[in-house]
Amino acid sequence: MKIFVQIKLDDEGNDILRSRLPDDAELVGLGEDREYENFSECGIAFGNVPLPWTLRSPNLRWLQLNSVGTDPYYGELPRYAERGIILTHLKDFFGVPVAETALAGIMALKRGLDKLVRRQELGQWVSPGIRYELNLLSRSKAIILGGGCIGRTIKKMLGGFDVDVLFYDKAPESGDLRTADQLDRELPDADLVIGCLPENERTRNLLNRDRLALLRRNAILVNVGRGSLLDETALVEMLENGALAGAVLDVSAREPIPREDPFWKCRNLILTQHSAGGTTDELPRMARFFLENFQRYHTGETLFGIVRGV
Amino acid sequence: MKIFVQIKLDDEGNDILRSRLPDDAELVGLGEDREYENFSECGIAFGNVPLPWTLRSPNLRWLQLNSVGTDPYYGELPRYAERGIILTHLKDFFGVPVAETALAGIMALKRGLDKLVRRQELGQWVSPGIRYELNLLSRSKAIILGGGCIGRTIKKMLGGFDVDVLFYDKAPESGDLRTADQLDRELPDADLVIGCLPENERTRNLLNRDRLALLRRNAILVNVGRGSLLDETALVEMLENGALAGAVLDVSAREPIPREDPFWKCRNLILTQHSAGGTTDELPRMARFFLENFQRYHTGETLFGIVRGV
Repeated sequence: MKIFVQIKLDDEGNDILRSRLPDDAELVGLGEDREYENFSECGIAFGNVPLPWTLRSPNLRWLQLNSVGTDPYYGELPRYAERGIILTHLKDFFGVPVAETALAGIMALKRGLDKLVRRQELGQWVSPGIRYELNLLSRSKAIILGGGCIGRTIKKMLGGFDVDVLFYDKAPESGDLRTADQLDRELPDADLVIGCLPENERTRNLLNRDRLALLRRNAILVNVGRGSLLDETALVEMLENGALAGAVLDVSAREPIPREDPFWKCRNLILTQHSAGGTTDELPRMARFFLENFQRYHTGETLFGIVRGV
Repeated sequence: MKIFVQIKLDDEGNDILRSRLPDDAELVGLGEDREYENFSECGIAFGNVPLPWTLRSPNLRWLQLNSVGTDPYYGELPRYAERGIILTHLKDFFGVPVAETALAGIMALKRGLDKLVRRQELGQWVSPGIRYELNLLSRSKAIILGGGCIGRTIKKMLGGFDVDVLFYDKAPESGDLRTADQLDRELPDADLVIGCLPENERTRNLLNRDRLALLRRNAILVNVGRGSLLDETALVEMLENGALAGAVLDVSAREPIPREDPFWKCRNLILTQHSAGGTTDELPRMARFFLENFQRYHTGETLFGIVRGV
């Protein structure tokens, strides 16, 4: 059985794949091969291969994406179904690291670590003055936009700080707030608003200028979902005017953020530069994720993270 | 009844005192008075007044310190007992803020926020490279030095991250590790070592060069207790050599840290500059702490935070 590896792993990740697959599994590519001919001989592919390949190949049976997002493959689900191709994504893979970066950013703003790091760079002692600028995460009220794995993991972490959490999510089983009207009623009471939503027509520009204006002056906004969630111009204005206490952005409309973007110098803004999913062992972990799913495929079990149509 | 207020509160704190004390309570000083004669007429004092005053005054019955630390008053407890003076300190007052700063520092190091803030200052996009330098707090092993309020609050906050915690404390009821030998056996396995100990002959230089050398290369050391806990020269060497992944220091032997101190430029070190106890409402909170104890005093209840001899 031939497996096309589109993703470029590190040595540890490749060693994991090589050593733990059965003898009759043959790895093709390992991130170095860009030839359709080689891909077309494979029944399994690991990594986000070019979309047209997935529609042309007569042999493909299972495509394991190396992302949580499923665009542009999602749009082809009906054709995959016709041709017996299973699509799986990296379900839940980034939950813990992204949630930790969200918490790290919130706590840095609350406890002044961004300011302290910059003062340390300058060799400036700023205590006790800075003490009276610091705030607490504990006992605050949070609205988490998105009740998926990242949002639920953030809620768990906030538990140790006695934070009250409301979820905004369209799904009745995960959403305390399910409509924009319900959200608007709660936003003025929130100390924290944490975005971890996928991008679609309901979430795009959800935090527009009017909705951002509902936030309290001492609120903190976090976005670890998709950059399209919010009005970036309005956000920068609010931060610069002190209409919002702080923000943590892992994602933005333009990435990399251009040199001239006002984000870089905006006060009380922490940019985590789309690093939130990262860990030193990200690539070996990804190899292990694939292997566990391969084990299921091999034994006929249901795969983890199957992408289904609506 | 006259109350000498040594501590200089802010307007909100003073208003709280003025408006919530009974009519027969007279406030003296409010942080502006340094005359012993005025102090000596008071039965109650709020704030760390000069030690000799407390031994001379014929009227003092209760001294509420505005610190958690009880030096130098602690040494006079036998004389206070003789003279019927009760000493109370700000017990548990800084537990939550200090624990939050400890967590903020740990998470900043794990998720690279110190590096990201410095790169933001320079307008440098560093993703995806930085992703592979990031680590997780979740599922790590921590040793907390000191089972008091700060340590217990840190443990509670670490609960949301599935961190295993061992306490080092001499008290059988709070210490999983009670001797230096037991500590030495566990240090090589710890991902986090968090110091929140008071200063005494057992804790001074507890983390000497030899003991620091037991730590893993990827461990993080935090000190939010007293600066005397550790060998600062050895710590800087280990951080610079990569023998330790990172450190967060709220306290140090010399404060303010002198301009020429190697701490300022030491890599993977976050200095929180003795700010960990701070909050915007620190002074009003302190006024409320005093008022709650005054209420107990007034009604004959046992005061909160009585300092007793050993």
